[in-house]
Amino acid sequence: MALPASRFQAALRLAGRSWTRPCLAPLRTGASWRAFSASSRWQLHTKEMHEELLSSLKVNQSRLMEDIHYTCQWGTGQKWGKEETETGMSRLALSDADKEARDWFVQTTKALGCHTTVDSMGNIFAIRPGIRNDGPPTFVGSHLDTQPSGGRYDGILGVAAGVEMLKVLADNWVETEYPVGVVNWTNEEGARFPISIVSSGVWAGAIPQETAHNLREVHPGTATMASELARIGYLGETPASFNNMPMAAHFELHIEQGPLLEMANKKIGVVKGVQAYKWLTVNVKGRDTHTGTTDLKSRADALLAASKMVIHSHRLATANGCLASTGILNLKPGSTNTVPGEVSFSLDIRAQKDHTVARMLQHIENDFPKIAAGEDILNSNQDCTKGLPCSITINQDFDSPATLFHPDCIEAVSRAAHSVLGENSKNLLLEMTSGAGHDSVYTSKRCPTSMIFVPCREGVSHNPAEYCKPEDCTLGAQVLLQSVLRFDRMRDERRVTWKQEPYTL
Amino acid sequence: MALPASRFQAALRLAGRSWTRPCLAPLRTGASWRAFSASSRWQLHTKEMHEELLSSLKVNQSRLMEDIHYTCQWGTGQKWGKEETETGMSRLALSDADKEARDWFVQTTKALGCHTTVDSMGNIFAIRPGIRNDGPPTFVGSHLDTQPSGGRYDGILGVAAGVEMLKVLADNWVETEYPVGVVNWTNEEGARFPISIVSSGVWAGAIPQETAHNLREVHPGTATMASELARIGYLGETPASFNNMPMAAHFELHIEQGPLLEMANKKIGVVKGVQAYKWLTVNVKGRDTHTGTTDLKSRADALLAASKMVIHSHRLATANGCLASTGILNLKPGSTNTVPGEVSFSLDIRAQKDHTVARMLQHIENDFPKIAAGEDILNSNQDCTKGLPCSITINQDFDSPATLFHPDCIEAVSRAAHSVLGENSKNLLLEMTSGAGHDSVYTSKRCPTSMIFVPCREGVSHNPAEYCKPEDCTLGAQVLLQSVLRFDRMRDERRVTWKQEPYTL
Repeated sequence: MALPASRFQAALRLAGRSWTRPCLAPLRTGASWRAFSASSRWQLHTKEMHEELLSSLKVNQSRLMEDIHYTCQWGTGQKWGKEETETGMSRLALSDADKEARDWFVQTTKALGCHTTVDSMGNIFAIRPGIRNDGPPTFVGSHLDTQPSGGRYDGILGVAAGVEMLKVLADNWVETEYPVGVVNWTNEEGARFPISIVSSGVWAGAIPQETAHNLREVHPGTATMASELARIGYLGETPASFNNMPMAAHFELHIEQGPLLEMANKKIGVVKGVQAYKWLTVNVKGRDTHTGTTDLKSRADALLAASKMVIHSHRLATANGCLASTGILNLKPGSTNTVPGEVSFSLDIRAQKDHTVARMLQHIENDFPKIAAGEDILNSNQDCTKGLPCSITINQDFDSPATLFHPDCIEAVSRAAHSVLGENSKNLLLEMTSGAGHDSVYTSKRCPTSMIFVPCREGVSHNPAEYCKPEDCTLGAQVLLQSVLRFDRMRDERRVTWKQEPYTL
Repeated sequence: MALPASRFQAALRLAGRSWTRPCLAPLRTGASWRAFSASSRWQLHTKEMHEELLSSLKVNQSRLMEDIHYTCQWGTGQKWGKEETETGMSRLALSDADKEARDWFVQTTKALGCHTTVDSMGNIFAIRPGIRNDGPPTFVGSHLDTQPSGGRYDGILGVAAGVEMLKVLADNWVETEYPVGVVNWTNEEGARFPISIVSSGVWAGAIPQETAHNLREVHPGTATMASELARIGYLGETPASFNNMPMAAHFELHIEQGPLLEMANKKIGVVKGVQAYKWLTVNVKGRDTHTGTTDLKSRADALLAASKMVIHSHRLATANGCLASTGILNLKPGSTNTVPGEVSFSLDIRAQKDHTVARMLQHIENDFPKIAAGEDILNSNQDCTKGLPCSITINQDFDSPATLFHPDCIEAVSRAAHSVLGENSKNLLLEMTSGAGHDSVYTSKRCPTSMIFVPCREGVSHNPAEYCKPEDCTLGAQVLLQSVLRFDRMRDERRVTWKQEPYTL
């Protein structure tokens, strides 16, 4: 039970309702569809709740944290502290561990009375009916997959907070005006199948399903997304599309993954958009030659050229006040006494503005071939021996323009945050732009969307030691719950999602 | 038959011998030990041959090339030209393909009347008895394993030329004074099990057998040398040691693997020694963080630091007139949107002189930790953002001081080369130092040793397109054969290997 009974009953009295504590025996797994619209007279309707009653609906911190850590038994990663929960996560998308976490999600949401649908990208939509079911659900969404050396909060917090929302609504017999739902998106990280937020991308019609299905897992595996979806039993029959699974809105709670909230002593980030980014793959071709017999000037050393490019991209990012990062680098043939003839590396460019990313790309497309050819760019050849030229190709794998979230969703989050944070809320809130991409980038193209950030320790993420305090997880989940309830109440008024046609920005 | 019969018969007449062409039917596989000392009167004894007769013993070019290409059916690599033989090789040590090539070597040398011994490192010694067998054999040796993207000549030419030597001796019923042999050394490349020339190292007593047996194959495999030797049936019972398999001398024919011979229009390199080299592994530790949310100054980017080190080692090599090369680089966790928290890379340093290698090591041990910590070394931080420090460890995996070959062996090669190259020999010979390490480095510690180099196209090696002209392969094999015969004649005179104790430099 999430609420201190006394406070909740007081709120009920204010609402002019009598209170009988509902039966809290756990629902059976696979319970039949709960007929909310035929439930007894004391059920709470979101639209009828006044502010104090609404605010008194609260998530249960210990239950939320238990869910997070319980699901982290599947894909447990590297240990970083003494406590049992002080380990990272390594739950690659569509792995056996991911299947276990998915099974938990399906069973848990079904037990809470949800209809659960799996689409052709393995996205799982759990929908809790509303009083009216003639409009699409308001969704909470995130992902259960992690980086190979990720943490326990990135994605997992958002899904667990969605499940906690369902539990709070069930505990308190709350009926929403429209259905609400929780979605687990597939392969958000792009760590195993190398396009991130790929399955919300297919849902949004931005990425062809065939492209996604044919994505091969990163070296050295050979499986594809389609083969792994089928193998673990999550290749659903419903085509992945906003047409088949429309959303009234999409709210996502996430750790910030950066240091700004913590540094500013803030508790909640009201996320107004996501920075622009592009992912490139750069292939440098030189010539394999023997390290002992090939003098420096007779070498076409692909790694030496690639090293200059990695540094050059960092210099360009410094000059343009944006980000450039190489997270993957593979070389061939890979032998101590052979000069590498081929290097392929990733380049991730991000900036607040689309035009900054475009300018970075222009510099890279202009300068990298020159570096490969042996020309000096910004002193890149200082004190070096001029060798033989390498050739180069640059492919753009992914492009996500700057995203602006929807004012109605931002307003719902903002109101919820002020309510949750209380009197000092102004000092605890930060309006911000997300540095990372999230599935909300794609949902925002088809329905009103916003995000909620909570601080994580030292801004560290994609690291086993990623950490978010239980009280911060709870605050975030509380803002998420309140945002969804507030949005549910706003829907008729704003007519945001009445129309049957899919929402387009 | 290698010789034009008319020329050979003329030579025989000069030697005062009658000539009956011996039966050239191929010897049966597994033929019993040939009792050479009891053979018929017209057999040729090396010690009795005069210069012209000796010189008239010639390798058969088409047979030599057939053997090379026949054995390249096992482990065929990347295609680079139109012809069937225009492919590289990928025959990693102790792979199934290596086993097939070994089986061929054992069967072929046995069929030529050799005793074949496999030692505990899988080194295969094929010995053809001499008239006297109270001294150790004069060996020809090289290796049948290749780089993952290697060519058809590195190592393979040396073994095939050894086999061709046995065939020429058999064809012409030549009896050597002392036994002669051919050895195939295991894992010369160090490409699969990451110590090169490891098995001649064990033989020489320079590397403990346990170290070699426990060597694990490079990422991502888990096999060890011992497990793979056992698996393919080449874990011999004879302990790998110069005590159990003493050598009177070791001659090795090899492609140059560099451009000097070709550039100077020379045909034969008389190799007087091998340059010094050290292999290091450098581990850089930073912190995994999200590429989109971590600003440049909050990063401990292990790849950015490693890139600066790769370039710095190249600058140091340029300044010191020597070589520095990185052939392996692995990073973790390996995801486009995670700044790598860990990078490990190889560093191969080579120079003519030991003190140059020592000076390079000193610079590296001094400068790399500073680069990791974020200090500027030779402008390495120009236009960069100062980030968080990384830590570093540097391990020395392998050290091979400069090697000087034995004057008697160098003399035998030099005399043989002058004889084979004829009147213009002075212009076709080059005395040189090997840039690459070879098993001859280790044999030289236990017996007189020298090497013969032949040019390869554009100096390219460790590359599928590695190429040595058939006529150059033949010239090299001819010099090899003549060197062994000349050394056999020199042995009593010089008393180089009479002593039973192992030879030590």
